[in-house]
Amino acid sequence: MQSTMRTMFYVSDRTAITAETIGHSLLAQFEGALDYREVTIPYVDSPEKAEAAVQEIQKKHLEDGEIPIVFSTIAEPASRDRIINSEAFVLDLFQMFLQPLQDALQTEPMIKKRAHRISNASTYEARIGAIDFSLLHDDGARTQDYDKAHVILIGVSRSGKTPTCLYLAMQFGIRAANYPLTEEDLDSLELPNILNPYRDKLHGLTIDAKRLASIRHERKRGSRYATVEQCRREVRNVESLYRALSIPYFNTTNTSVEEIATRVVQIRELDRHSAV
Amino acid sequence: MQSTMRTMFYVSDRTAITAETIGHSLLAQFEGALDYREVTIPYVDSPEKAEAAVQEIQKKHLEDGEIPIVFSTIAEPASRDRIINSEAFVLDLFQMFLQPLQDALQTEPMIKKRAHRISNASTYEARIGAIDFSLLHDDGARTQDYDKAHVILIGVSRSGKTPTCLYLAMQFGIRAANYPLTEEDLDSLELPNILNPYRDKLHGLTIDAKRLASIRHERKRGSRYATVEQCRREVRNVESLYRALSIPYFNTTNTSVEEIATRVVQIRELDRHSAV
Repeated sequence: MQSTMRTMFYVSDRTAITAETIGHSLLAQFEGALDYREVTIPYVDSPEKAEAAVQEIQKKHLEDGEIPIVFSTIAEPASRDRIINSEAFVLDLFQMFLQPLQDALQTEPMIKKRAHRISNASTYEARIGAIDFSLLHDDGARTQDYDKAHVILIGVSRSGKTPTCLYLAMQFGIRAANYPLTEEDLDSLELPNILNPYRDKLHGLTIDAKRLASIRHERKRGSRYATVEQCRREVRNVESLYRALSIPYFNTTNTSVEEIATRVVQIRELDRHSAV
Repeated sequence: MQSTMRTMFYVSDRTAITAETIGHSLLAQFEGALDYREVTIPYVDSPEKAEAAVQEIQKKHLEDGEIPIVFSTIAEPASRDRIINSEAFVLDLFQMFLQPLQDALQTEPMIKKRAHRISNASTYEARIGAIDFSLLHDDGARTQDYDKAHVILIGVSRSGKTPTCLYLAMQFGIRAANYPLTEEDLDSLELPNILNPYRDKLHGLTIDAKRLASIRHERKRGSRYATVEQCRREVRNVESLYRALSIPYFNTTNTSVEEIATRVVQIRELDRHSAV
């Protein structure tokens, strides 16, 4: 266990979302063993901004008494070099990977200002269209256009359907609807009529009853809806329904939205590259 | 211009979202100069799955007649090495960055199975809470709890408010509401009463009138709402309103959701690390 405080910087000439993703992925390997704060500096796209970033890094070095770590994704060589030569330990994606990739591809990279630009308009439209679709078709609000859905998530209230649908749309451009199964549906062990024509698009989510009760308790404290008994009954019934109708499903307990979405894509063999 | 077809693989022992992010970032530097298909193989977390991935890579090598490129993020050393030794050009995040990072941190990484696990429960709850918040407060649907919002986006219909709010919640755990300004609001050059107490949380979006008309046309073909004249009038009025009331704003034309969200975070000085 280290007791010193360090600063992790995420620096980029664009949004710095890639730099953050890389940093989080690597730092997860040291989880619990480090104490650090995080600072993100996006849009470092001029010598002045690179210099300002270097000053900020240097300031934290003095404050912390520990050398800062910098996760950097800067395509433009002059700004990149300025950051690399700062008083920090710098891991830059382009420095490490671009030259080898260029050699492998036998193609020259085009260093250009891409800031604020949408690189592929038609796939971008597909993503925005998918977000609209998932909002319109959230929680059974609208059941028209189910023929246009790539997947329809079903499950009890608060099993993770809505954030998963939004993530599928946002990240992969996948049109995902979701439909909540009510107590009546579950007691009858039958699908609502509206879902019957779309059986091959249905994917079930389930969740441990105790975890479900705790999530519901956060929203509707003290309601019958949030009791462990009620949750246990709903979960048992929904799993029976999935099995009776051979609807594929998995358990989302302690599973992040990213993981749930990725598993749905994998199991349903959806195209995660149609719109990215 | 290269005429051969190549395959880009994204391989990981988890979701492969980081591998895709890295690959897209690097490949954007060669935009237009490469012809490629993309294949993602998530959850490569056993020797058998690593072997199956290697077979798939080899198959594409034979099919394409070009060596595949593999963007890989595999924490577990044995599977990672198996992929690195495949018939491909492999760029592995952990191979390149983990040892240097470990040296800089003077801390041992913990190689462990983290699959399907949420690494930080309280920040994860904050993200899910923010998604709930943005859904409840989308499009002015609910104006209670505005005191709990980190930011309230305003603008004309279809200027990018909704996807930006969802992205702010999903990526950064930021509670973002949005409120659509109607023709009546714009003609009066006054804010709706409900927004007045929250002036310091408001952020305006605007967009070029022609682009707005084309977006609206996709949704409501041939309506007055979608005419360039109508869009021009709304955009002119909304910008006058922002200026008259000193509400910060920027233009979202051809700007991706990620970029809009990042600029809002930067301008409003919001905390992008509170919930990631």
